[in-house]
Amino acid sequence: MYLEKINSPADVKKLSVAEMNELSHEIRQVLLQKLSAHGGHFGPNFGMVEATIALHYVFHSPEDKIVFDVSHQSYVHKMLTGRKDAFLHAEQYDEVSGYSEPMESVHDHFVMGHTSTSVSLAGGLVKGRDLTGKGGNVIAVIGDGSLSGGEALEGLDYAAELGTNFIIIVNDNQMSIAENHGGLYRNLQELRESNGQCPCNLFRAMGLDYLYVNEGNNVEALIKAFQQVKDIDHPVVVHINTLKGKGYAPAEKDKETYHWTMPFNPETGVVFHPSEEPQDYADLTACYLLRRMQEDRRIVAISAGTPTVMGFTPDRRKAAGKQFVDVGIAEEHAVALASGIAKNGGKPLFGVYSTFIQRAYDQISQDLCINRNPAVLLVFWGSLSAMNDVTHLCFFDIPLLSNIPNLVYLAPTCREEYMAMLEWSIRQNEHPVAIRVPATELAYGYRPVDADYSRLNRYQTVRKGSRVAILGLGSFFRLAEETAALLKEQKGIEATLINPRYITGVDEALMEELKADHELVVTLEDGVLDGGFGEKIARYFGCSPIKVLNFGAQKEFVDRFDVQEFLEKNHLTAPQIAADILQQLA
Amino acid sequence: MYLEKINSPADVKKLSVAEMNELSHEIRQVLLQKLSAHGGHFGPNFGMVEATIALHYVFHSPEDKIVFDVSHQSYVHKMLTGRKDAFLHAEQYDEVSGYSEPMESVHDHFVMGHTSTSVSLAGGLVKGRDLTGKGGNVIAVIGDGSLSGGEALEGLDYAAELGTNFIIIVNDNQMSIAENHGGLYRNLQELRESNGQCPCNLFRAMGLDYLYVNEGNNVEALIKAFQQVKDIDHPVVVHINTLKGKGYAPAEKDKETYHWTMPFNPETGVVFHPSEEPQDYADLTACYLLRRMQEDRRIVAISAGTPTVMGFTPDRRKAAGKQFVDVGIAEEHAVALASGIAKNGGKPLFGVYSTFIQRAYDQISQDLCINRNPAVLLVFWGSLSAMNDVTHLCFFDIPLLSNIPNLVYLAPTCREEYMAMLEWSIRQNEHPVAIRVPATELAYGYRPVDADYSRLNRYQTVRKGSRVAILGLGSFFRLAEETAALLKEQKGIEATLINPRYITGVDEALMEELKADHELVVTLEDGVLDGGFGEKIARYFGCSPIKVLNFGAQKEFVDRFDVQEFLEKNHLTAPQIAADILQQLA
Repeated sequence: MYLEKINSPADVKKLSVAEMNELSHEIRQVLLQKLSAHGGHFGPNFGMVEATIALHYVFHSPEDKIVFDVSHQSYVHKMLTGRKDAFLHAEQYDEVSGYSEPMESVHDHFVMGHTSTSVSLAGGLVKGRDLTGKGGNVIAVIGDGSLSGGEALEGLDYAAELGTNFIIIVNDNQMSIAENHGGLYRNLQELRESNGQCPCNLFRAMGLDYLYVNEGNNVEALIKAFQQVKDIDHPVVVHINTLKGKGYAPAEKDKETYHWTMPFNPETGVVFHPSEEPQDYADLTACYLLRRMQEDRRIVAISAGTPTVMGFTPDRRKAAGKQFVDVGIAEEHAVALASGIAKNGGKPLFGVYSTFIQRAYDQISQDLCINRNPAVLLVFWGSLSAMNDVTHLCFFDIPLLSNIPNLVYLAPTCREEYMAMLEWSIRQNEHPVAIRVPATELAYGYRPVDADYSRLNRYQTVRKGSRVAILGLGSFFRLAEETAALLKEQKGIEATLINPRYITGVDEALMEELKADHELVVTLEDGVLDGGFGEKIARYFGCSPIKVLNFGAQKEFVDRFDVQEFLEKNHLTAPQIAADILQQLA
Repeated sequence: MYLEKINSPADVKKLSVAEMNELSHEIRQVLLQKLSAHGGHFGPNFGMVEATIALHYVFHSPEDKIVFDVSHQSYVHKMLTGRKDAFLHAEQYDEVSGYSEPMESVHDHFVMGHTSTSVSLAGGLVKGRDLTGKGGNVIAVIGDGSLSGGEALEGLDYAAELGTNFIIIVNDNQMSIAENHGGLYRNLQELRESNGQCPCNLFRAMGLDYLYVNEGNNVEALIKAFQQVKDIDHPVVVHINTLKGKGYAPAEKDKETYHWTMPFNPETGVVFHPSEEPQDYADLTACYLLRRMQEDRRIVAISAGTPTVMGFTPDRRKAAGKQFVDVGIAEEHAVALASGIAKNGGKPLFGVYSTFIQRAYDQISQDLCINRNPAVLLVFWGSLSAMNDVTHLCFFDIPLLSNIPNLVYLAPTCREEYMAMLEWSIRQNEHPVAIRVPATELAYGYRPVDADYSRLNRYQTVRKGSRVAILGLGSFFRLAEETAALLKEQKGIEATLINPRYITGVDEALMEELKADHELVVTLEDGVLDGGFGEKIARYFGCSPIKVLNFGAQKEFVDRFDVQEFLEKNHLTAPQIAADILQQLA
């Protein structure tokens, strides 16, 4: 076995082409074994095996610096840079993260996870190198799917100005997470079909030199190309044509499913679900929208390269026809597009992960909210318990969105409430609306919910009590109920239970009412505290004798954390909250 | 005179070419008169006279919808769509805003002001039109300078997918605010030099049809081109070559100065300064950095298309050489570039207006702060009193940045403090740092300031008093001093005066100390309250008997507002604050 003897890129350099081909085969076997047992990004890594081997054969990392966009396709890079044991031995599987991590290795330069950042970050390495008079190659690796992102296009446009050694490898596997969207993909196709020769060339139009490698999964061809550009004195794009999922037939056939997989049966390729019930707000959303779309041709669902976040599988996308739009990885454009659609008579809904809405603050503020166009943003997975890679945290959407005037950000607590808010947001025409889709399992609340949310910032008193009022926002409403139950059980306190519904405003009338017979107001939010919901309530009661206790997460980045430990650290369990409340009562 | 008879685009259609040429001349005279007296965007509008006339001659606004990027160049459009009086008569000059405004006219479709949004917004109008089965052309007008922005590139990439009538006019005047930066500008030059024929064509590479007009200031040539694309059934780019500032020799000669001007002498072109003293933190910054750059070759200043925000005039940019980088309008890239530079040994500082940093939230969070790379962000004009166009408000940078872990956001109160923080931020290597440059006149504080800010979140007690503690953040420290003086004068109260310095953290030790002998803690911040600094203090004292009063702006968008009225509405004057404080004291 060759892989077992690779402790650093130096060991790759000792291999012959035949041995590197054998190594490719071994790597795929190892990946198949780990990913089928453990889950992870499958197709992207299978497609990048030969290119990664060739990179480490030709270049001298870390003097030569390689930056992988998103870095979900850098498992092979990790295997070749001293971290093979995390792939060979099941008990060590979790020793590496799923993304680039400088703390693991000098061969990783940034913590990464969002798309379209590699060219800009690597451009910074280029400029830093040149300012400090250092040597070495700088190489950015970016997939074609990431090219639609504004930051990537900005980075490419600027690369030519840098004017010194800068190698940008475009890994063209003709896929994003789903299929690609955007005019530039036709140009990539032209380039592939003309073996890189067609005169109209996006990269040259951006001022960059260019080289095409048709056999992007052929180690020898790749080594030849990389050697050609090694130590080059100006920026160049090396466009390689690869096959996503290469080497595992089910993945080659169904590229979308195998982008990222849960554990699956490696013999049959059948993906099995984990024991806990899958979250299904996505399915609910898609089925509901498909039905409404048939009744109302103005309704259009928008995705920025992640269609299944809102349940739009390939079949459902087909069923929706022109009423489903995927703009590729381009969240900023998605928001502005939605604003324009709403302005011109359509009813748009943009579904996006909380972590990726971070890309579109200015567009939400300017393009959408200043214009008060009635588009709908469906923010999925906003929660402390949703994703636990540091670059995919979904902690910050409440502070991010809540300071934008004119936006109505709603937090449903249960299935019925989500459906009601969704329907209202489509029917109404006055406000840009965002809905924080619960990141919990699909659950009924068995409580009455409003159909109309036009009278803004009116919270719902679910149960009237006294002394303590608990405002349980969105997915934390259940935590509020559990806490109230403990207070009753432990001290006979009948806490007032409030479902705020509106993240973006304070129900002043209700807050005034509370003053009569409450000593303490408690807020629970499933996100970071700084800039969040609870602080607005604290400000409201600033000069009142009423105490305010805010629960949420402290402001920090965490990676691959244990959710339960993290919640406990932040006192986000019912027993802890009840204890903290009792401490405050006279 | 022709202009006086134009009340709508229908009146433009009645003119002959000779009459339209006469109209162009009149428009320039009127613009010169208004702008030399009143100030405004000069060069962009002079360059767009013929194109705007031709647009309204050929198309039927508002059934045909025209969207101007940024919309700073839409003065002529306003003149031709019923708003000429705001340009002809001095007493009516302020009846129109400097940007697109739907409330003024059905011919304006969005409130706009940030760059690079038109193609995406217009794309939305296209989709809305198609979903609702309407007719009409949709036209986006975008300057070459805006093309470097990620949102614009995302929009262009997606336009081809829309597949129906969509006309994108690229107004190529070879300028951004300053000179252009980016590889794509070489392609624009090739296109101009080959009369649109060269095979390598950025727009075709994005999947778009393409037409070139060399004489972009010739009404007849423009009409011919626009008629060619009118009612076209697919997306097309019309690339027009214009001269920024055309028709006024000083503006043709010095395009950067005449992008936007204060009132000036129309005979000589000499720009005179208004009576109040110009803000000079920009000059201070540039001179300081130039000096440090000579000592330390690692220091590099970065701008995203607005070099003079940090004082880098053309001469100073030249002097800085490779240590000044302008990435064009590409704030996201600027942040990631800075992160990469810091990672690879450089000392980068990115200077940017508060309103435009809104473009880069995700990059600051992900590319910079998760990586803890020690780059510096200089945020200029963060204040309620800085810019008063709704699309350029500088109200939101504190909420935007303060929820990002690892970022140290400093608020200097005076000149000495800014200099000290600037020097520290460059010398240190542990943190990504942002500094909220005072948006006031350059003033000394005559107080001792720290040189080292490494011990985070330690506020500075400027004067120890009792009963009331006033935390005056950054530019509002002086307001705190004035308020304290009034409290002393009116009621003999010696308020404690605190300069927090650190926006991103709470000095818990000091807050605990205050509990001993204070009833009330007051916060003053020059920005919106939601998600801001004061709310963190309110949360801290939530369960304490100490009252907290937060001053700042309510969450709303305001346009062309009177600053004094706005501050008073928000109780942001010393007498009002003192009165509110006294109301809270027992």
